[in-house]
Amino acid sequence: MAKTKRIEGVLSPVVTPFNKDYAPDAGRFVRHCRWLLKSGCAGLAVFGTNSEANSMSVAEKRKLLEALVSGGVPAAALMPGTGHCALADSIELTRAAVELGCAGVLMLPPFYYKGVSDEGLYRNFATIIERVGDERLQLYLYHIPPVSQVPITLQLIEKLISKYPANVAGVKDSSGDWSNTKAMLDNFAKGGFDVFAGSEEFLLANMRNGGKGCITATGNVNPGAIDQLYRNWRSADADRMQAAITATRKIVQQQPMIPALKAAIAHFGNDPQWMTCRPPLIELTKIQEETLITDLKASGFSMPGLA
Amino acid sequence: MAKTKRIEGVLSPVVTPFNKDYAPDAGRFVRHCRWLLKSGCAGLAVFGTNSEANSMSVAEKRKLLEALVSGGVPAAALMPGTGHCALADSIELTRAAVELGCAGVLMLPPFYYKGVSDEGLYRNFATIIERVGDERLQLYLYHIPPVSQVPITLQLIEKLISKYPANVAGVKDSSGDWSNTKAMLDNFAKGGFDVFAGSEEFLLANMRNGGKGCITATGNVNPGAIDQLYRNWRSADADRMQAAITATRKIVQQQPMIPALKAAIAHFGNDPQWMTCRPPLIELTKIQEETLITDLKASGFSMPGLA
Repeated sequence: MAKTKRIEGVLSPVVTPFNKDYAPDAGRFVRHCRWLLKSGCAGLAVFGTNSEANSMSVAEKRKLLEALVSGGVPAAALMPGTGHCALADSIELTRAAVELGCAGVLMLPPFYYKGVSDEGLYRNFATIIERVGDERLQLYLYHIPPVSQVPITLQLIEKLISKYPANVAGVKDSSGDWSNTKAMLDNFAKGGFDVFAGSEEFLLANMRNGGKGCITATGNVNPGAIDQLYRNWRSADADRMQAAITATRKIVQQQPMIPALKAAIAHFGNDPQWMTCRPPLIELTKIQEETLITDLKASGFSMPGLA
Repeated sequence: MAKTKRIEGVLSPVVTPFNKDYAPDAGRFVRHCRWLLKSGCAGLAVFGTNSEANSMSVAEKRKLLEALVSGGVPAAALMPGTGHCALADSIELTRAAVELGCAGVLMLPPFYYKGVSDEGLYRNFATIIERVGDERLQLYLYHIPPVSQVPITLQLIEKLISKYPANVAGVKDSSGDWSNTKAMLDNFAKGGFDVFAGSEEFLLANMRNGGKGCITATGNVNPGAIDQLYRNWRSADADRMQAAITATRKIVQQQPMIPALKAAIAHFGNDPQWMTCRPPLIELTKIQEETLITDLKASGFSMPGLA
């Protein structure tokens, strides 16, 4: 099979809607994904941290992925998260994503055991790549030590690129540490390794240093403005655009991020069911919700075409 | 259905044997479980941290559980770990364990998200209990903050006991903090909440304060001596027995615990395949292995009937 062009630009780790009984809601999910693609997202990193992906089983995620594709979302725009603690789960969902034609997969390291060796992590990724055994697989490593507690080091990236150059495509750096993103760019970007910032706060810096975009939580609610900076990062207006999207992010992250994104979608989309989170996460309190919406409105924020 | 008597005594979080291709090896697993029950274990906490349980899928664990029961291991001796990040996975494996007649289940909190609220954790456990919906369910909470990073607080335990008194049976405390175990005993043991120490280092203290035994990694290799202390904790010789089993533990935990347990079983059972760990864990280095075996032998350690 011919390789599709790699995704670049703004990706959203799409929040997952749940029914009152915590079942994933495929209909709302497809609608939100279509809105995101219409509104500025180049791609959808479904099943990320902000998607409550680890709160869902592999079977639940496979069903949602199939619903997206059959609901008209192009597989070439999808970069599902497929890394689990269990090797067998990572293999199963990665294989399913490749077979559906997804542009890539975003892969967490196994995150239960702490303090594991690079050799153990290498074996995990290498075993997945070899068992999936498909040249179409484009694997993006997911570095998010504040949550996973298991880092992906530069040494590990180097070893994986050198052994699997056709499959290891890039990284999402959610360390929040620009010096780490910069080191990834300096070491690997020229060799065709695509570095995505894990927050739009670093989008302009990432682009100026050879990065390919960002995969960001607030892409769920503010995709248009973030995409404008991505498209115009060389313009004289870039720093102002960066300041504006960073300001919006700061409003959202004053509240717990995932329920805040859902509360914004519920409010601006006039669809309260969106507020439900799956345990162990919980919805915002009334006061948190009111603060969020008041602050967003005061900033001039809107979500055109959502309601 | 009549409720079976609750397990008390020494439980082993049974290490899981893997083939060279990392597939779980049901034959070796059944044989090791039978040896443990013959050698001092009152019960088997299969699918614990030391079992690399989170490195296996739910389907792999169901198959192993069924292999145990069909291989002659009494379900009444089993307390499988059934807590996952994904609510749906926890429900599926818990239900399977109850339907097989397992004595109980040992349940981790969902451990991907950090800093979650007690309300969110409460909803997780409550939803599992209600969806399984079986009076036979005996749920033991698994508190292991050094690994899970998500604690089970006294307030959470109190709320769960008060809402589900027939199902919430006890706790394994692997905090390594005796003052926390003591607080659990002081607050809940008299009400019929069974506290197991997460290490035999605290077995005597736990028994003297109303606890029910221990669930300990080194139960995989030293079940007889640990059980002797459990059976004779009121004897004049108890402190000497405690010192002896603690000394053996200290030898093992000088090396990474899980591969060390496997190396000991491989050596004393004359079965090198036991050394394999599933990624992200790796086997001991040759030097670590030699140090472990030399130190164990020098202490007079043996595993009677294993080879």
